[in-house]
Amino acid sequence: MSKNNALNRLNLIQDHISQPTGPIDLANERSNASFNVEHMYWLFCGSKEFAKALSDAYQMIQRDPDLYIPGGHSFDMTQPQQRELVQRQIFRYQKVHKTLKDPLLCKALEFAMCNYSEAYSMRTYVHNTLFRQSIEFFGTKEQQDEWMDDVLNWRIIGCFAMTELGHSSFIRGLETTAIYDRVHDEFIINSPTLTATKWYSTHTVAICQTIIDSESYGINWFVVPLRDRKTGHLLPGVTAGDIGAKFGRHGLDNGWIQFSNVRIPRKNMLMKWSKVTEDGKYISPQNPAIAYTTLIGERLTVLTGTQNALGKALTIACRYGCVRRQSVDDGQIMNYQTYYVGLVPCVASIYVINVVDRIIKIQWEELIKQIHTNQTEFLKNVTDIHALSSGLKGTITWWGSEMLERCRRALGGHAYSAYNAIGPAIGDWGVNTTGGGDNFVLLQQTARYLISSYEKMVQGKRLSGSVEYFNNINQFSKIVKSDLLNEEQLYDMKYNLDMYTWLIGQKLQYLFSILSQSQEDPSVTWNNNQVSLIRLSELYSFRYCLSEYIQGLSNYQNSIPEFQNLCPILTKLGQLWSIHLIHESLKEFLEEGYFGKEQANIVKNAYFRMCKELRKEIIPLVDSWGYPDFVLQAPLGKFDGDVYKGISL
Amino acid sequence: MSKNNALNRLNLIQDHISQPTGPIDLANERSNASFNVEHMYWLFCGSKEFAKALSDAYQMIQRDPDLYIPGGHSFDMTQPQQRELVQRQIFRYQKVHKTLKDPLLCKALEFAMCNYSEAYSMRTYVHNTLFRQSIEFFGTKEQQDEWMDDVLNWRIIGCFAMTELGHSSFIRGLETTAIYDRVHDEFIINSPTLTATKWYSTHTVAICQTIIDSESYGINWFVVPLRDRKTGHLLPGVTAGDIGAKFGRHGLDNGWIQFSNVRIPRKNMLMKWSKVTEDGKYISPQNPAIAYTTLIGERLTVLTGTQNALGKALTIACRYGCVRRQSVDDGQIMNYQTYYVGLVPCVASIYVINVVDRIIKIQWEELIKQIHTNQTEFLKNVTDIHALSSGLKGTITWWGSEMLERCRRALGGHAYSAYNAIGPAIGDWGVNTTGGGDNFVLLQQTARYLISSYEKMVQGKRLSGSVEYFNNINQFSKIVKSDLLNEEQLYDMKYNLDMYTWLIGQKLQYLFSILSQSQEDPSVTWNNNQVSLIRLSELYSFRYCLSEYIQGLSNYQNSIPEFQNLCPILTKLGQLWSIHLIHESLKEFLEEGYFGKEQANIVKNAYFRMCKELRKEIIPLVDSWGYPDFVLQAPLGKFDGDVYKGISL
Repeated sequence: MSKNNALNRLNLIQDHISQPTGPIDLANERSNASFNVEHMYWLFCGSKEFAKALSDAYQMIQRDPDLYIPGGHSFDMTQPQQRELVQRQIFRYQKVHKTLKDPLLCKALEFAMCNYSEAYSMRTYVHNTLFRQSIEFFGTKEQQDEWMDDVLNWRIIGCFAMTELGHSSFIRGLETTAIYDRVHDEFIINSPTLTATKWYSTHTVAICQTIIDSESYGINWFVVPLRDRKTGHLLPGVTAGDIGAKFGRHGLDNGWIQFSNVRIPRKNMLMKWSKVTEDGKYISPQNPAIAYTTLIGERLTVLTGTQNALGKALTIACRYGCVRRQSVDDGQIMNYQTYYVGLVPCVASIYVINVVDRIIKIQWEELIKQIHTNQTEFLKNVTDIHALSSGLKGTITWWGSEMLERCRRALGGHAYSAYNAIGPAIGDWGVNTTGGGDNFVLLQQTARYLISSYEKMVQGKRLSGSVEYFNNINQFSKIVKSDLLNEEQLYDMKYNLDMYTWLIGQKLQYLFSILSQSQEDPSVTWNNNQVSLIRLSELYSFRYCLSEYIQGLSNYQNSIPEFQNLCPILTKLGQLWSIHLIHESLKEFLEEGYFGKEQANIVKNAYFRMCKELRKEIIPLVDSWGYPDFVLQAPLGKFDGDVYKGISL
Repeated sequence: MSKNNALNRLNLIQDHISQPTGPIDLANERSNASFNVEHMYWLFCGSKEFAKALSDAYQMIQRDPDLYIPGGHSFDMTQPQQRELVQRQIFRYQKVHKTLKDPLLCKALEFAMCNYSEAYSMRTYVHNTLFRQSIEFFGTKEQQDEWMDDVLNWRIIGCFAMTELGHSSFIRGLETTAIYDRVHDEFIINSPTLTATKWYSTHTVAICQTIIDSESYGINWFVVPLRDRKTGHLLPGVTAGDIGAKFGRHGLDNGWIQFSNVRIPRKNMLMKWSKVTEDGKYISPQNPAIAYTTLIGERLTVLTGTQNALGKALTIACRYGCVRRQSVDDGQIMNYQTYYVGLVPCVASIYVINVVDRIIKIQWEELIKQIHTNQTEFLKNVTDIHALSSGLKGTITWWGSEMLERCRRALGGHAYSAYNAIGPAIGDWGVNTTGGGDNFVLLQQTARYLISSYEKMVQGKRLSGSVEYFNNINQFSKIVKSDLLNEEQLYDMKYNLDMYTWLIGQKLQYLFSILSQSQEDPSVTWNNNQVSLIRLSELYSFRYCLSEYIQGLSNYQNSIPEFQNLCPILTKLGQLWSIHLIHESLKEFLEEGYFGKEQANIVKNAYFRMCKELRKEIIPLVDSWGYPDFVLQAPLGKFDGDVYKGISL
């Protein structure tokens, strides 16, 4: 470098100014696509029609001064400014929404807004899902008639007051009480302690201990008005405030509430399932478990949320990796092994999650219809999807944290700037792993289901649902060594699925024998194996994703020609994902003696090979998710590759 | 739960208000200490005297209205407010500092301020270390005389302009030029392109390509005044701005600079090593490598930074874990296996890093004296410590990210609130892994050194320094199977050190043979093994930590009685850390056939056992780091355990 002719260098720099290399790099990357990116966008959106509607919706947002974020991003806004922005977007959306004739476009616009703003997404989710669905799900016909019109038109803005300062996933331990006053036919809602302070909320369906004549009847859902609908002032006995500075989601108005003997009419207890009569008689629901099933829908939404948060972050990281060079002589940093081996499996996993998300939501929608037709059948089936939703939520959101950290590292020093969107995304993301059920708790729920299912199977009962494969799992256990001899075998996803099943079988067998033979207090034995049990739930959840992806792929093979043509690349993505699962479990396979050094090497070679193979199409693969630049909000992720120009000085 | 007498429950709640359980819990935890916490605090501080000074320093800060953060924390301040706060703290510190007669207290106050505020720490670091040390290290006697008095008294506020928008760790590729103008005896500093924009800085030592008569002589360090010292206005040709919103360190005034043909006198090039004469003759330094050695000191500071950032986060997480209960009947959540197995190894690692930090800094201080006495010897030795510092920086800061994520998860939903300090700590931390040398780049530097050292050893040369053990490493390779038969063996740290050495030997041998026998372009082979090479550097760095900890422990065994008495608990911490290293490498040991299933189980059992054993003393172990509540800035980490009371509503 030294002593070279500086003029040559300056000329080189001159060229660089007039023609930045980024756009050429991305154009080259795009020319590598073996598939039709537009058709992949349709597939990712679920259909050509929805893809079209989504593109239109993005355009509507970009052109609407109240939906679009002034200046293009909110990274420089204060918390109050961000809150105001989100409220404005919500009210504008309500207006725009009413003018739309096309239901698909309505749905697309809502979806696009959620993709555009995490805070908007959560704010509408709290009102539309947590608050509204509580009324729909727990309220009687009369109660729904009373409130739903206001709710649907946002004349009441609702929240969900479950979590308390000192209590979260152990719902039965909530301290807030609703004491029935027979004389006035009212409930008195009270937060007896500081730790009972309702946390992270503003207006509410409050979950309280139901107390009648000093007797506790467990928790119920109560609609508690918090503010005067005209003045907005807090009602007597309600103390509430903002929870203040957070790690992320600054536009979301999380608050806290304390109730000091707030009186609400008896009929404000949501009484579709449990009832309290005028004379203070408590009528238990036939199936108390139903109350908890509302949370299943919530958990499944993280599958969509993961695609969105990680889809954006990965688009930014991959595009940056393809335009950035470590030195003048060097190639794109995406060609470094650490770079593509880090990111390619993440990209593949977003495709897998997309397929799984679609399949499981259809199952859930089918199932939820049974609530009103066949409660016994519903309750039988809901156990399985409950365990599955807990497992998927825990497993996928932890994987999401890992993926975001990879994206952050991929951006190098640029991740330090909020304007490259990865840092703020990490802030927004974290609560997905600890809220909506803490992952450690959820994955243990799943583990309990898995162990008890295994026990049933051992007792000769036939299992169905997501654990149907347990019926034959002990046959797998007879195999003690893998027959893996060459990489070719690993390109068969079903082969990898079977290996994974084998591993789950080993863990199940081992944990079941430990737990069932233990002489200690069962909770002690459980706790001493907590790490392994949580790992079991992860393996089960990942396996579910792989098996559903294989199913989804076969559906596409019998679908419209445009989707059929995508099957080769979708197969490659599935192959990589399945090898990724094996690769991440190498320790366990080696430990069990199922793999030796040779097999481990075959897996590693196949893994690196597939990552390298798919790296070639990484830009078309992220392009297919269709995030417009204004949604990415990161100059380094610009579609045209002219990344540095977008940085405002 | 249902149907129990609500009055009993309300009484229980009443008790809970009058006597929160947290303080009792922490008192119980503290009664478990097998060691003297105060003496451990001395040890952690390096000496009784410094420990005393540090306690005094903390008290000074807490009582000084300009050093103390108004309101106790900065989480609600805007970025400008945070910047103002840090500047006020810096100027106040300068005043306070001058009144202090005791040099130990001066040092302690500086240290305490850095522990108190990450932004303060980085802002003073940029001025005191990057800027000032550049002048000391690269400047002649005359240049130091000209600037140092202003620098030491903060009349000049300096920064370090190295990183460019488009260039970072590849320093030779920087685009900013310093072109010598013989007629005026000046350099013309210019940013020819957008990607040359100096990033993350304000006033500066700029690193530029040195150009004389259109010939480039490589990079040099130039002092460039940016602002009028009286008015504060930017000087002609200097364009600068704030880089705006960041992911963390909001109080730090990172800026960007563009130079448009800014003229500086020739003598502003720092000329201790390279020189440019008046007639434009370039005199190269005898040893060009010396220029890069300044960065070594920077890298070593992360060891102190890690103890501080993680020490605080772990104190918060561990105290919260010991007062929080999942349900009324349940014990402390710290007793969950996932909880203590996650946190205990982190706590142990802070003790290890503390010892390693002290040892390596003494080595570095000894070494740096050689610069002026024996440059050849210095350069011979500096290569080793350079590779070591890169390895430690990369390895420890990635481990730091992992530890912070564990702390975040340990706080459950409370981590979402900025007031519990973990979220903001994650924001502040990230740049440690990508700045000051990106970890991927640094760990490859280390790997290059390791491979070339191994090659030298193979060629019969005797190695010294951190790779001295390579001399005998091939003897280890003759062992093909571990002789591990029972847990007892694992409680010998040296036994674990030898196993780790064995593993490093395997990797070295394998990678060296691949790299030396490759028929491809060497850079291609390197890249195809990048993941393994980086892993090699991690293993080498962790092994160094363990071997130095063993050394440090033997020093304490021959130290003052107070420290001798701490050796049993320090031994336990070292045992756990050494088993942790083996546990984290289980896959690799299994892969090589060194371990079978039985050995893997022995390691896992020992690991869980040691975690459980040390969990008993986790509170005394974090208490010993001595962070006052006002430094932790997190109600959930309160010393007295009354954690919820500290949350302001």
